[in-house]
Order: sequence, then C-alpha cells, then structure tokens
Amino acid sequence: MGIHRFFMSMNDLERIIRAPGRFKYEEHNVAAHSWKVAQYAMFFGTIEENNGAVINWKSLYEKTINHDFAEIFIGDIKTPVKHASPELKQMLSHVEEKMMEKFILDEIPEEFRPVFFDRMKEGKDETIEGRLLELADKMDQVYEAFTELQHGNTDPEFIKMYETALRKILHLPLEKSVAYFKEIMLQDIMAEESVIDVKSITLKILVE
Amino acid sequence: MGIHRFFMSMNDLERIIRAPGRFKYEEHNVAAHSWKVAQYAMFFGTIEENNGAVINWKSLYEKTINHDFAEIFIGDIKTPVKHASPELKQMLSHVEEKMMEKFILDEIPEEFRPVFFDRMKEGKDETIEGRLLELADKMDQVYEAFTELQHGNTDPEFIKMYETALRKILHLPLEKSVAYFKEIMLQDIMAEESVIDVKSITLKILVE
Amino acid sequence: MGIHRFFMSMNDLERIIRAPGRFKYEEHNVAAHSWKVAQYAMFFGTIEENNGAVINWKSLYEKTINHDFAEIFIGDIKTPVKHASPELKQMLSHVEEKMMEKFILDEIPEEFRPVFFDRMKEGKDETIEGRLLELADKMDQVYEAFTELQHGNTDPEFIKMYETALRKILHLPLEKSVAYFKEIMLQDIMAEESVIDVKSITLKILVE
Amino acid sequence: MGIHRFFMSMNDLERIIRAPGRFKYEEHNVAAHSWKVAQYAMFFGTIEENNGAVINWKSLYEKTINHDFAEIFIGDIKTPVKHASPELKQMLSHVEEKMMEKFILDEIPEEFRPVFFDRMKEGKDETIEGRLLELADKMDQVYEAFTELQHGNTDPEFIKMYETALRKILHLPLEKSVAYFKEIMLQDIMAEESVIDVKSITLKILVE
Amino acid sequence: MGIHRFFMSMNDLERIIRAPGRFKYEEHNVAAHSWKVAQYAMFFGTIEENNGAVINWKSLYEKTINHDFAEIFIGDIKTPVKHASPELKQMLSHVEEKMMEKFILDEIPEEFRPVFFDRMKEGKDETIEGRLLELADKMDQVYEAFTELQHGNTDPEFIKMYETALRKILHLPLEKSVAYFKEIMLQDIMAEESVIDVKSITLKILVE
Amino acid sequence: MGIHRFFMSMNDLERIIRAPGRFKYEEHNVAAHSWKVAQYAMFFGTIEENNGAVINWKSLYEKTINHDFAEIFIGDIKTPVKHASPELKQMLSHVEEKMMEKFILDEIPEEFRPVFFDRMKEGKDETIEGRLLELADKMDQVYEAFTELQHGNTDPEFIKMYETALRKILHLPLEKSVAYFKEIMLQDIMAEESVIDVKSITLKILVE
Repeated sequence: MGIHRFFMSMNDLERIIRAPGRFKYEEHNVAAHSWKVAQYAMFFGTIEENNGAVINWKSLYEKTINHDFAEIFIGDIKTPVKHASPELKQMLSHVEEKMMEKFILDEIPEEFRPVFFDRMKEGKDETIEGRLLELADKMDQVYEAFTELQHGNTDPEFIKMYETALRKILHLPLEKSVAYFKEIMLQDIMAEESVIDVKSITLKILVE
Repeated sequence: MGIHRFFMSMNDLERIIRAPGRFKYEEHNVAAHSWKVAQYAMFFGTIEENNGAVINWKSLYEKTINHDFAEIFIGDIKTPVKHASPELKQMLSHVEEKMMEKFILDEIPEEFRPVFFDRMKEGKDETIEGRLLELADKMDQVYEAFTELQHGNTDPEFIKMYETALRKILHLPLEKSVAYFKEIMLQDIMAEESVIDVKSITLKILVE
Repeated sequence: MGIHRFFMSMNDLERIIRAPGRFKYEEHNVAAHSWKVAQYAMFFGTIEENNGAVINWKSLYEKTINHDFAEIFIGDIKTPVKHASPELKQMLSHVEEKMMEKFILDEIPEEFRPVFFDRMKEGKDETIEGRLLELADKMDQVYEAFTELQHGNTDPEFIKMYETALRKILHLPLEKSVAYFKEIMLQDIMAEESVIDVKSITLKILVE
Repeated sequence: MGIHRFFMSMNDLERIIRAPGRFKYEEHNVAAHSWKVAQYAMFFGTIEENNGAVINWKSLYEKTINHDFAEIFIGDIKTPVKHASPELKQMLSHVEEKMMEKFILDEIPEEFRPVFFDRMKEGKDETIEGRLLELADKMDQVYEAFTELQHGNTDPEFIKMYETALRKILHLPLEKSVAYFKEIMLQDIMAEESVIDVKSITLKILVE
Repeated sequence: MGIHRFFMSMNDLERIIRAPGRFKYEEHNVAAHSWKVAQYAMFFGTIEENNGAVINWKSLYEKTINHDFAEIFIGDIKTPVKHASPELKQMLSHVEEKMMEKFILDEIPEEFRPVFFDRMKEGKDETIEGRLLELADKMDQVYEAFTELQHGNTDPEFIKMYETALRKILHLPLEKSVAYFKEIMLQDIMAEESVIDVKSITLKILVE
Repeated sequence: MGIHRFFMSMNDLERIIRAPGRFKYEEHNVAAHSWKVAQYAMFFGTIEENNGAVINWKSLYEKTINHDFAEIFIGDIKTPVKHASPELKQMLSHVEEKMMEKFILDEIPEEFRPVFFDRMKEGKDETIEGRLLELADKMDQVYEAFTELQHGNTDPEFIKMYETALRKILHLPLEKSVAYFKEIMLQDIMAEESVIDVKSITLKILVE
C-alpha cells in the first residue's frame, strides 16, 4: 500500500535480534548489522579500487543495505538451523523469496516494482560487489563472535561462528582485501585482551 | 549428548520472544507462554471433568508444556508469515519436524527416545486433551493481544490476532469450556478499561 | 472478580524476577521458572514410573505449575532473607498464606474455591509428587546458579545457591532420580566450559 | 565485614525495582527514588525555613537518603500487600528491622554501629524532618503514578496510588509546603496533557 | 591503532541512543538510524534520477553511512540543547570536529587518512547528494517522532520534532522528492491510526 | 514553568546513562549515581566530623544531590572526550553553564531563583564540603569501574577510569578520610574475587 509501508517496515528490522535464543553479552539488531556491513564493504571496496578494480558503487550500496531485508518475514533463523542441511536451508530461502515477492506486489507501487525486485534479490553473486558483500557480511560475523568471546561467552556456537566466518573470508576471491584483513587487521584482533583465548583459535585456522 | 543438553536448551526458550519484530508494550517469552498454556488447560480441563468428561491428565500435562518446544529451532515465526499460505506454513512445519527429529537423535539417550518422540509430536489432535491444548494456546493469544490493545497498541496485527483467536475458540468442540469463556470471562474482558475499544471488537465477533 | 482476574495475574508472574537485587548475567521470571520445574518433574517422574513407582500425574501437574503462585504477593524474597532465620522464614510463609487466602476469597468464584485452596497450598509434602516437586525446584536452582557461574559471576551467593541446591538434591528420598542425576547429568555439567571452576565446587560436595 | 560491604550493597538497591510485578511504562529503582526524595525534601525544607521553621539539615539529609535502605532485604513489597492488613504490614516491618539489625552487626565496624543504628531506624517521626520525609516520599508516589497515568496505564492500582498519596499529602501537618503544593504545583500537574484524565481524578480528591 | 579500531568503534554507535533522557516507547540507536537514512536516501535518489538528475551514488553512499559517526564522541546531544542557541550549536560542532580529527590521526593508518578526512566531514552541503542526505535525515526524524505520537507519547518535544522536520523537508530544494513525499507518503501517514492526532498537526503545517 | 517542571526533569536524569557508548555489564543512571555520591559523602563527612572538622551538612547535602544536574542538558559526555583537551573540557562546561542559566530563568519562579543559582553552580570548591563532594564523586567512579573489572570487562577504558579516580582520591586534602579509604576499604576491594586482576592494578598505584 505504498512506500510508507516499506519505510515503516524498517522499524521491524530494528526489533529483529541476530542469533536469537542464544545467551549473548550484547544484542545486535538487523538494521544496525546492515549499516556495519555497508561500512565494511565501503572500506574493502576502497582497497580494491585503489588496486585497480572498478567498483559499481551504486550496486554495492544497494546490495549491502538490502541484503537482510527478507528477515522482516522469518527473522534471523538460528544459525544451527541454517546449516542443518542444504535441503532445509534451500526450503527456508524459498519461503523468504515467496514472502518478499508477495510483499513487493502488495506494498510497492507499480512504478517502483522492477527496482525493488532487483534490489531485493540475493546479492551474493560472482560480481566484485557480490563478493564484497559476502566479505562484509562475514566480517560482521567475525566481529560479533569475537566480542562475545572477548567478554567470556562459553557457548561453543560463537567459536564455531568465528571459525566458520574466518575460514570463509580467507578463501574469498578478493586478493587485496583478504591480504589486508589477514596481515593487518587479524593481528590487531589477536593482540586484544580477551577472556576466551581468541589468539589460539585464530592461529589454528591460519595454519590450516 | 544427554538430558543435560535438553535441560540447557530450555534456557533458549526463555530467550525466544513471541511475535518478534512487532512493536509491543510487553514481551513474552516462549517458556512463560508454555506455563500459561498449562494453566489455562488445567482450568478448562477441570470444567470438562466436572461436567463428566474423562481427562487424561498425564497427556494434557505433556501436551501443554511441550507444544512449542520446536521453537528452539526456528523461533516464533512472525504470524503474518505463518498464515501467508498453507503451502508455506506446511513447509515450515516440515522444517521444524526434521530439526526436532535430528535433535532427539543427537541429544536424547536411546532409552528415552520413544518417550521424547511421542511427547514432541504435534499435540493438537482430536482427543479432548488435544482440543484443550488448542483452546489454551488460543486463550493466551487472546490475552496477549488484549493486553496490547488495552495499553493502546495501534498495530492492526494485534486486532487481527485477537479476532482470529477469539473466532477459533468460539468454534472449538468443547461445549462447557467455550460456554464458560463466552458467558463469564469474555464479559469481564469487555468490562476492563482499555485504550483501544476491545468491547466493540468483541461484540462484532459475537454477533457473527 | 473471577477467573479472568486469576488469568490476568499470571502476567504479573512474568514480571517478577528471581533473585532480585543481585547482579545476574541473565534474568529469569517466575512464570518461566514454573515451566522449567514442570519439565524437570515430568522427566524424573518418568524415571520413577519406569522403575515401578505409581505417579499421580494430575497431582504432579498441579503442584509444579502452581508452586510459586504466591510470589505474585511478595515477589521472590531475596534468598539470604529466606534463610536468615527459621522464624523470619515462617513469618513470611504465613504472610503469603494469608494473602493467598484473601485472593481466593476475593477473586475466585465460589464453585472453584475448594479446587483453588487445594492447588495453592504448599506442594512439597511427603508424597512422591511432593518430593518430585522439591527435586525439580532445586534442579532449576542448580541450573540458574550453574549458568551464572559459567558466565563468570563472582557473587559468592551463586556458589552458595549451587552448593545448597546440590546438597539438597543428593539427600532427597528419590533413589532412581537422584542416581540418574548424580551419575549421568552431573558428569555433563562438570564437563562444560565454565569461567568459574564449577567442577571443583561439585567434586567437593560429592565427597562430603 | 566493613564499610566496603555497605557501599557494595548500594548497587543492590539500583537493581530493586519499585512496584514490582505490575505493568509499567517506566521502571524506577530504589536508588534513584531515594535521590528524588532527597530533592523534594530539600525544596520543601527550604519553603518551611523561609517561613520561619528551623530545619536540622543533617537529620533531613540522613533520613531521606537512608529511608528505603531496608529494601535491600525484602525488596519493594508490592503495594497491595503492604496495605492488605495492618497486622501483615507490621509483621513485614518487623522482618525488615531484624534483617537490618543483623546486617549492621555483621557488616558495620563497631565504631560506626551507633551511627548506623540511628540512621537506619524508621525516619518518619513527628519532627519537622520526619514530616518532610513523609511528604517527599508521597510526592514521588504522586509523580510515579502521574507519569504512568499520563502515558495511559490502565492498571487501577496506579489511580489508587495517585489518590492515596495525594490524600496523605493534603492532610500533612506542614502548612506552607502543602499550600504551595496544592495551589501551585497541583495546578501545573492538572494542566499537563495526559492519556488518562488526571485532572478529574485530582479535582475529585480536592473537593473531598 | 588501525582500521580494526575503527571497526570496533562501530559497536559504540549501536550503544548510543537517540533523543537520550526523554521518555520513549521505542529506543533507536545511531547505527540503525544511519542504515535507515541510507535507505531513504536511496529511494529519493532513485526518484531524482528517474526525473533526470545525475546522482553520484558513491558520494551518497559515503555521506549517509558516515553522517553521524562523530556521535561516538559526544553522543546524540539532546535536541533542545542543539537548538538552544546558534552559538552553542557551533561550539558543539567544533568540539566534534576536533575529536574526529584527533581520532583519524590516532587510529587511521596514513594511507587511508585523506579518504577518512573526506568521508567524515559534514555531508549536508549544496550538492544534490548533500540535499538528499538532509532529506533522509529529516525523514527519519519524521518517522521516529510519528511512531512515538502514534503510541501516545505526550512529551511535547516529539510534536516539536515532528513539526520541525516536516517544515524542513517541505522547503528542501528537491522538487520531485518533496512532491512525492507530500502528495503520496504524507497521505499514508495521516491515514494511520494514532493515539495522538497526527493528522491535525500535519494539516496545520501543510496550510502554513 | 515552575517547580513542577524541575521535578519532572528529575525523571530525565533517570534516563541518562553514565559512560554511554561503552560496553558495560551494568548500567548506572545519573539519578542513582547522585544518591550514591550523597551516601559516600555522608560517611566521610562523619569521619571528618569525628576527627574534629566542622561540617556544614546543609551545604554537603545541596552539593551532592545537585552536582550532576546539568547532565539533563548534554548527558554524561563520554569520558575520553571530557579528558581530550582542557580547552574542549572548558568549552563543554561553558555550554552546560549557559543551558543551566537558561533553564533557571525559564522554569524556576523568581522567588527561588537565587537559591537555585547557588545550588546549581559547580560544587567542587576548596571548602571541606567541596572536597568531600570530589572524594564522593571519585569514589563512585572507583566502584563503577571496579565492578566492571570484577565481571571481566576487558575495555581498557575501565582500567583507566579506576586508576584515574584512585590516584585522584589518594591525593585529596582530606587526611582522615583518605587514610580510612586506603588502609581499610582498599584492602577489602583487593580481597574480592575478580575476573580482571584488580589487586595488581591497585598495588601498582599504591607504590607510585
């Protein structure tokens, strides 16, 4: 029933908490997460651009701020569920897609529908912007898990989340960004005071 | 890896919030909701028993306290999604079932598995205990929606939630309980001070 | 004035926080606690039944979900107070009883009063259901204290709470349940990662 | 075991919430309440002093900041309980007194015990400082209830709390303060926008 | 010391609450606000582009996600203060600028300093991207104030915030966007259920 | 417009959180902090009085409960900002002063203005009451930082806050109070269980 509805629904994403159901020292909502992803992506996009890549900034902007919009429908599904089986994961993606389609047809005025269909589709494709989105999304998983471990969260799920995101980043086809992350940022992460021994966990992943 | 894991997972249900993503004056977690459902069911079970029905109290006990356990996996899916399409709803139920099966096989010792498979299956069947569970679950939806409307929540979703649950209750095959609810309790609900006019909404449903 | 009032008062128990006034990493309300007690009791009731005991499931159901209802009147009195002196403890119980009596006479319709007087009286008697309630209530104290210690809560009150509940459980006249708890579950608790050394605390109690 | 323990226990009062168990738009802890009481008392003490009274400011200071310290033991007992019966109220006061005595003997070094026994005793006596404390304490009840009604809290308990405190204030033997409150401040309260009609409630009390 | 520090500081913005010190039904943090601003800006940028304007999307992306970064230093200064006097406002801006300068010199590696100095400077300039940022920022003020009024917030500050932002938007030199907002979206806002009469407030502004 | 406005604004201070933007295990509001400062000051004032000093208790009362009132205007500026440069600190003090002046002229009736101008001015002067205020304010900083370190807060800002406040206290010209703090209370602080090693940090400061 209009763009007004779309803007109102952004408030819903401020109420959707990431990693629901787990004990956490700090909660993060999907709106704030999306902003952080936009920040990481801009930084690494700058690194890639400085090294000669051509970045479509409009596309990167669209991809990062919209990448979790579908969570207004089913929330941030608990991670263990997401990874339980490829089949379940696919079924959930399909549900989200159908809900998004219905939302756009119900709420978005006809003139803007093509734009919204385009912006709301899965953004993690093979383009450099798609890869930067993947990097930025995993980067926030690294930081969310890291700060929990730093405060002393003993839930093994956060170690798994940290390790999984780290491994994913290290294998991403974004040479310069990954090198900067590995050689500079990861050293700073390991140098931080932390109740849980993040340094050892990180070193173990690095030697793999 | 044991009953210990099962007991620890109950804490997860204290962190799962009902009706996620919507503005609410008060949040309710799934653990507290399950307790209230056990209370409503015991009251209406008593009414039915006083009127000659035979209640299997062990079954009612099992059904009420376990009926939302599967929400540890995908949380309390937002209501509009649940009702979006029968097909999506069914897909989500299927995902939950698969997750529960996996959980029981992974965590519950073999000697207790049959009991857990039995207790964790969908409880809203045609038995009188299944119907009492359905009544009790809808009753809590009535109360959750009512208190939001009472505080002045203008989100139309809560009116819809109140109306849907009310209609469902009024058509349940539990003659004495429904009569008691309609003739006594609903009068008290309508007599309460309320910022949103719950009385008119209720009367409209009653004349249908 | 009626069952409606009783049902509305359940919402009050969702707002009463256990162990008030102490620093806690996680808060638990009395409603959620009551649900967990109903779960522990069902599990250990099953163990006892499997070993030949006769369980009155209706009674166990009633006892567990109602055992802390009187906290709507004076809340969850701080533990050090409860244990300060037997005389004070008795005075507080007396206050609660009087308030409950007044509540039933004021709010519960005459036809249901006998049932409510019966359900709301102290449930921890010598019957097997009374002992299962005591076990289940202490079990939740073990888990609440354990998770605080696990997160690193240095308040000595939580060590005391853990030790007191543990000792109480180990001496309960429920042979099979206590054996299962001691031989299986307690091993899993000691095997968990924990900021505070729960294993040593537990072993110290076990050798007593 | 020392003044350190006493200072640490102040943190407990920041965790004790007033009017526990009731739905509230805003929570107030006992520490913040005590500060507000000290502020009201200083203002009305100034009015009395300007009109010729002699104020013992040290006594007023002591009375206001310590008047609810005993709540570290049994918290802020729910108001309906406090007023349930004079006998119950007296029993609870007795419990608090005994706990306070025990606390002082256990924690406060001998040299400071007389001072603490003096400061921690009931402060609402017949002195002008005792009456200013009573006025200030009721004033905060007026403001806490007023802001709830202003936001639209339909719980009749808050109307009762507002009315009771108002009546109490209007009959206090503090002529100048009460006149200032009634003729100036109460007019400003009635002039505020409010979801619940506080003006009518107030006028009804004034004509009594 | 490095980009790691910059990324860690984003977490600080999740803890900075907008409109601090005022009663609010919902709190919004600066991180989530920044994301919503990026969303509004993208939508209105699309409208302008569809009507022939040339948008520098990289600049709009940079401006929106960074526009409140300086709030990590002094937080979201209370609005009445911000508008108290142009002189005070200017002094506060100067403080923020100095702090940001210091932060960049302390934390950002030399190679990235020029980029950060550029991105962190005041974004609301005369370019079309600067005007879109101003529109988007005010849009979020409209929505934050509107939802408070909708829930029944009687604090006159929120009416003032709504009116001020609305007036500002209606006079912005962004013809197509302002027309769309005024003719389409504002109608939808006025059509919403609301405890406080937003429609009248809006109409009063429109006839000015 | 009147004392009513002043009393309503006290509620704002309950919503202003100290050390905003940093991760904290426990939040403290400015109202509760002011109460604790009034408590520390009374205790150390008693020590000084017992050792022959003459205390103006009215002045100490006024100073302690009003010392942070100006935070209703710009909140609790983040500590690193406060200490960034003497020049910035002075500018912020000036802003606060101007806001307070404006507030008194706008809200306080003429007859009370001199009293309010006097009470709201900077209280940390050279009088014994001014020095007791400084001691009490730093004491609360010690306790706030200590409890964070005790829970395991790895943010180096809290170590800095603890050290800075400790050093300040140890050099205050209040011989008896400082001796009592150093010889008695600090020993008890060091004897507490703590996740972060507060004892070493304290000893390091003591040998300076």
